[in-house]
Amino acid sequence: MTRARKSDLTRNRILEAASGLFAAKSFDGVSIRAIARRAEVDPALVHHYFGTKDDLFNEVLSHAASPGTVFEQFVGKSPEALGAEILRTALGLIESPAGPALKALMRSGISSHPELLQRFVTKQLIGRVIPLLDVPEDERALRATLAGSQFVGLFVARYLVKVEPLASLSREEVVRLVAPNVQRYLTGEL
Amino acid sequence: MTRARKSDLTRNRILEAASGLFAAKSFDGVSIRAIARRAEVDPALVHHYFGTKDDLFNEVLSHAASPGTVFEQFVGKSPEALGAEILRTALGLIESPAGPALKALMRSGISSHPELLQRFVTKQLIGRVIPLLDVPEDERALRATLAGSQFVGLFVARYLVKVEPLASLSREEVVRLVAPNVQRYLTGEL
Repeated sequence: MTRARKSDLTRNRILEAASGLFAAKSFDGVSIRAIARRAEVDPALVHHYFGTKDDLFNEVLSHAASPGTVFEQFVGKSPEALGAEILRTALGLIESPAGPALKALMRSGISSHPELLQRFVTKQLIGRVIPLLDVPEDERALRATLAGSQFVGLFVARYLVKVEPLASLSREEVVRLVAPNVQRYLTGEL
Repeated sequence: MTRARKSDLTRNRILEAASGLFAAKSFDGVSIRAIARRAEVDPALVHHYFGTKDDLFNEVLSHAASPGTVFEQFVGKSPEALGAEILRTALGLIESPAGPALKALMRSGISSHPELLQRFVTKQLIGRVIPLLDVPEDERALRATLAGSQFVGLFVARYLVKVEPLASLSREEVVRLVAPNVQRYLTGEL
């Protein structure tokens, strides 16, 4: 095995260990040392590959959700269908292997690290989705945060608190019920 | 001072100490012992007056928000204005002295005690508001949880994560922007 290949494997092992731990606990409940132990490497290696715990957490998240790639698929889609499209994509993401990392971000962000959640929302939602809309520039951030509030609330109610009947609906039922509201925030009359 | 009066004072002092601590930290970050210390009483007295920490937390919450009284004001109001009315009341509550306890519930509920949040949403929102609406009984819980998802998300985005420009809007601006969405969930076509 080449040295580069070995280094890739180690990096991936650390990333997997971190994903697993962040998903199971809150951001504060996970230490670099615990990640290193689970990945069976020296803690210094974790720092070497990923920097601080904040950096590593962001890496886990981008790696899991690849939001760049995810959001690119909206380019060129009709703005009137964007509410449903984004919702469908977001729900798919949460129910994918990336879900646990997103749940961890949400839990940590809400309970004690709002800046992590803020960074994610601002960069991904405001930075990527809103420029696709044909709305006045001075309304963009407002529309994005309103839509964001519906996403966060849906996420919390359905996946974290699991309120019924919302938690048991199929993904498409949720899209049908919630998309018109998201759409109003994105392009409707405010 | 009579014994009953003295007991009332002690009870209130414990309740105040608990409110302050729950508001500043998460549910898990507060111990009965810390509450007792702050109230300058013996921990056994806290148990004597309020039972378990769960019970005390619920007491703090009901005491702070008095949701029973709050929601009674909607009885007899036009169902078409209910979205705006409830929203205005909820925002008022969060920005009142009851706010910190509600924020603590939200943080704890989301991060580690969904059952507390679930109990509150089910009892208050589904139990009290939805029966006021003229909608088929089998749609009630669904409509309540959809509206609840918007409330929770607005709460998180505006008060916990403080995303701009949502966080700096006036209360009435938020009502104007969000009420139509809440109203659709409560009485609109789904």
